[in-house]
Amino acid sequence: MTSIGFLGLGDIGTPMAARLAAAFDLTVWNRTAAKATAFGAAHRARVAASVADAVRDAEVVATCVPTSADVDGLVTSALPTLSPHAVWLDFTSGDPVVSTRIAARLAEHGVPFIDAPVSGGTSAAAAGTLAIMLGGDAPVIERVRPILEAVGKTIVHCGPIGAGDAVKSVNNALMAVNLWAAAEGLVALRKAGVPSAVALQVINASSGRSNASMNLIPERVLTRAFPRTFRLALLDKDVGIAAQVARTQRAPAPLLQLTAELMRIAHHQLGEEADHSEMVKVVEGWAGAEIG
Amino acid sequence: MTSIGFLGLGDIGTPMAARLAAAFDLTVWNRTAAKATAFGAAHRARVAASVADAVRDAEVVATCVPTSADVDGLVTSALPTLSPHAVWLDFTSGDPVVSTRIAARLAEHGVPFIDAPVSGGTSAAAAGTLAIMLGGDAPVIERVRPILEAVGKTIVHCGPIGAGDAVKSVNNALMAVNLWAAAEGLVALRKAGVPSAVALQVINASSGRSNASMNLIPERVLTRAFPRTFRLALLDKDVGIAAQVARTQRAPAPLLQLTAELMRIAHHQLGEEADHSEMVKVVEGWAGAEIG
Amino acid sequence: MTSIGFLGLGDIGTPMAARLAAAFDLTVWNRTAAKATAFGAAHRARVAASVADAVRDAEVVATCVPTSADVDGLVTSALPTLSPHAVWLDFTSGDPVVSTRIAARLAEHGVPFIDAPVSGGTSAAAAGTLAIMLGGDAPVIERVRPILEAVGKTIVHCGPIGAGDAVKSVNNALMAVNLWAAAEGLVALRKAGVPSAVALQVINASSGRSNASMNLIPERVLTRAFPRTFRLALLDKDVGIAAQVARTQRAPAPLLQLTAELMRIAHHQLGEEADHSEMVKVVEGWAGAEIG
Amino acid sequence: MTSIGFLGLGDIGTPMAARLAAAFDLTVWNRTAAKATAFGAAHRARVAASVADAVRDAEVVATCVPTSADVDGLVTSALPTLSPHAVWLDFTSGDPVVSTRIAARLAEHGVPFIDAPVSGGTSAAAAGTLAIMLGGDAPVIERVRPILEAVGKTIVHCGPIGAGDAVKSVNNALMAVNLWAAAEGLVALRKAGVPSAVALQVINASSGRSNASMNLIPERVLTRAFPRTFRLALLDKDVGIAAQVARTQRAPAPLLQLTAELMRIAHHQLGEEADHSEMVKVVEGWAGAEIG
Repeated sequence: MTSIGFLGLGDIGTPMAARLAAAFDLTVWNRTAAKATAFGAAHRARVAASVADAVRDAEVVATCVPTSADVDGLVTSALPTLSPHAVWLDFTSGDPVVSTRIAARLAEHGVPFIDAPVSGGTSAAAAGTLAIMLGGDAPVIERVRPILEAVGKTIVHCGPIGAGDAVKSVNNALMAVNLWAAAEGLVALRKAGVPSAVALQVINASSGRSNASMNLIPERVLTRAFPRTFRLALLDKDVGIAAQVARTQRAPAPLLQLTAELMRIAHHQLGEEADHSEMVKVVEGWAGAEIG
Repeated sequence: MTSIGFLGLGDIGTPMAARLAAAFDLTVWNRTAAKATAFGAAHRARVAASVADAVRDAEVVATCVPTSADVDGLVTSALPTLSPHAVWLDFTSGDPVVSTRIAARLAEHGVPFIDAPVSGGTSAAAAGTLAIMLGGDAPVIERVRPILEAVGKTIVHCGPIGAGDAVKSVNNALMAVNLWAAAEGLVALRKAGVPSAVALQVINASSGRSNASMNLIPERVLTRAFPRTFRLALLDKDVGIAAQVARTQRAPAPLLQLTAELMRIAHHQLGEEADHSEMVKVVEGWAGAEIG
Repeated sequence: MTSIGFLGLGDIGTPMAARLAAAFDLTVWNRTAAKATAFGAAHRARVAASVADAVRDAEVVATCVPTSADVDGLVTSALPTLSPHAVWLDFTSGDPVVSTRIAARLAEHGVPFIDAPVSGGTSAAAAGTLAIMLGGDAPVIERVRPILEAVGKTIVHCGPIGAGDAVKSVNNALMAVNLWAAAEGLVALRKAGVPSAVALQVINASSGRSNASMNLIPERVLTRAFPRTFRLALLDKDVGIAAQVARTQRAPAPLLQLTAELMRIAHHQLGEEADHSEMVKVVEGWAGAEIG
Repeated sequence: MTSIGFLGLGDIGTPMAARLAAAFDLTVWNRTAAKATAFGAAHRARVAASVADAVRDAEVVATCVPTSADVDGLVTSALPTLSPHAVWLDFTSGDPVVSTRIAARLAEHGVPFIDAPVSGGTSAAAAGTLAIMLGGDAPVIERVRPILEAVGKTIVHCGPIGAGDAVKSVNNALMAVNLWAAAEGLVALRKAGVPSAVALQVINASSGRSNASMNLIPERVLTRAFPRTFRLALLDKDVGIAAQVARTQRAPAPLLQLTAELMRIAHHQLGEEADHSEMVKVVEGWAGAEIG
């Protein structure tokens, strides 16, 4: 049974690790130790006292942390005890530039790296139905496929190292564009006397529909619930990565670049804890009218 | 049986009129007379020699032309023979400012106006399953409901005169934003080594999905078919109207306003006959890479 | 001696009227009557009790009010007593579309219209050194030239009715673009460790310099004085007009259109009384750093 | 007399080196050797056969090449023969991120680095009146001050390593914004019937004026001369650096970011050899009208 060292028990990492505990030999570590202890009490998993300890016997090191810079720090802590036969499987929504640099560091120790950001939120993580975007070499991906299948449903090899990160960032950027633009339109219509539910009834039966108009806005905005499932701060980071991918590739992307600025503004204005769906509040504030 | 004078046998107007011919007392008129003659030969409808003739006995005048300015011209031609007991039902994707002005002109003659732009394209028009967005007074809408039900499935009263136009324009603007942004992302990913079909597989299972990513791009762009079903020139007009709605309502809308500029650029570059989906060619051209 | 009915004693109108009082037969009117009374006490001018009274004997009606909509209202009040031999000279920073409509109304009464927005602020108004942008027919302009020369130094006939408004709006839009962009750059440099005075020393000796970098920022922003000489609310209106000119002319203008949105946002955020130079506070707020 | 190894005899480097040849012990090197040979024939300078040869006895290595990546390559070639007592003085319009990395490489060999991009074009380079923006330590700058004074008039220490690059990039980005926005405005006015020379007469007497409106457009655009003094390709690079500075500093900069996209588009469309002033042709092309 494959032994896994799992680093990072956040909102997404915890339900993923819970599924892996049921099928693999799991060791967990978390920056805030209490969360790891609680996880160990609830699931069949060993709790490591340090990163070095967590990865010592791991055939696969799995990471799920906020940024690629965090992964880079974990690599530094792990290298002294990391087996040259291990694979590093990074579920972080990472930056392809940093992932490439991390992969090079690990390659010097013979350890292959796979970027494997996930999509679907906490519910898909708990159900094992995440979408997983993979960057790296196909044979390495085959070595970790049982792990991927334990947590994901849509498992897509996107390209070389960093390609998973790039696709994830673009997906999230499109979600941001679609949501912000829908908010702009709904606020303007509201001021013109059209209730948002009426406008959405039309849009969602027509060509302008998107996941934002069909799900995010009805469930999170019209209800004013704004459940905190995915922080705007992280979406800001992701859209910034997508914008950087476009710049690096010399692909003019005026809408994505402008959206990156809007996310930065919204993040600054709404703070670290805001849910991504709260971005619409910035649009509403500028216009002096609420979607509804 | 309600008598209808139907003005405008274009791509959408023709299949709509065909459905109405089966259930109502229909008279048709078209700027290019040959189209009206052909229609009369194929359907149970009288062919009028002039606008004045077409509306003389009409209880409902239905218009389906490129712009509200065209409708305004038809009103001028119709007024001498228009019955004060008629209703003017405008299926044009119109401009709320001009529709409001037209409604005021007609009101002086006692004729109420309903803006009723439709969505769904030629296939929905033929099937009678259009989405119809209505602006105007509810009792007037009730008077024309049998006509609406003969051509539409989703029939939504959006608000006062112009509200239908406004909602239609915003729907189309969101489609334009979603499609253009997806093209930006896919081109950048392509240059980073990710095939577009792979990227779409992920996006369409994730939060960034939209009608553009799920339908328009797979069917029209990946196939390089770009079927000419909805001209970019008309979409440019619609996004311009949505941008104007936002400006009039003092609702800051940076993404919609920038998209209005991109549509104008694409329209200029691709010409009058290009399909709206061809806008992606501008994104591709700027980056020197094709979606695919 | 030409008789002038001068309507609108605001920040710019008052010093203009003061210069005209010295050389012409002047009657003044102001919405807030106290200002007109005070003006009459200080200068050789008759104070009219109503618009109708002010224009009754005027060979030239001069208007200097916030918007073209205000001018339109004054026309309505003036028409009953307006001489068919008068000229209407509008110093308002107006909207070419509305000016054209006003000109048509006046033309029905035989009264020609000149749009003549001014630039230079209160000090140039007092010194009689305003720049004046004229739209309308050359012979009409000749009839009012003595008035123009009494208040302006740079007197430019720009084109047909509305051309003066259009040029004024574009000038102000360029000022807004140049100022906002300079603020973006200076804030970013400040966060990178470059004092703004140092950055400006370079920029103002180099290709990036503008009136914004050479005058507005050193005098108003670095000093944190933000003197209230030209309200952001009015600049917002002007940039909106410039954006509309570009749209009407089908001239893609992504920078001007985006700037129109930024002005709207800043206006909303800073309120009705803020000086235009305070727009930089929005840029500073988003970045969490001050120019300085 | 200080010995200088000067690497890079391009449009700006050549006149700079010519001035330095008159006052210092100069050795030159250029990628295309013929240019170096010609320089040696015309000025009092030794011509080196290789980078390693050029820097062997240099107390100051001066570089003036297209990009920081080129500088990085020169460092690699120079390190084997570079004296640990030398100073590296980089006149390239560089990237602060890469400059910081280069400085770290050189520091390992004890060699301090100064980024010193220049502004003013070929004429100022020939006249010794360049503006020079410096990043690095003050005592190091003092060591090279005689060199700086031989080529520049405005010599400004902007901050730590990279600060010179950052200020230069922002200056150029502001020039790009000011020029592009002016082009947008002038094209729209032209279509509205206002000759560009008339519009500029007003703007250049008013608040919207900038170096672009006062010098670049009258001299390069109205004349249709577009002299090739500064390539658009290099300006595109510079604006991209400024945009990156803003992103790195988390300073929202919608206008600068959008301008970076517009430069990329213009560069793609106009090619490698176009002068920066030719960017207006893109604005003209989109609108179907010429400034003039």
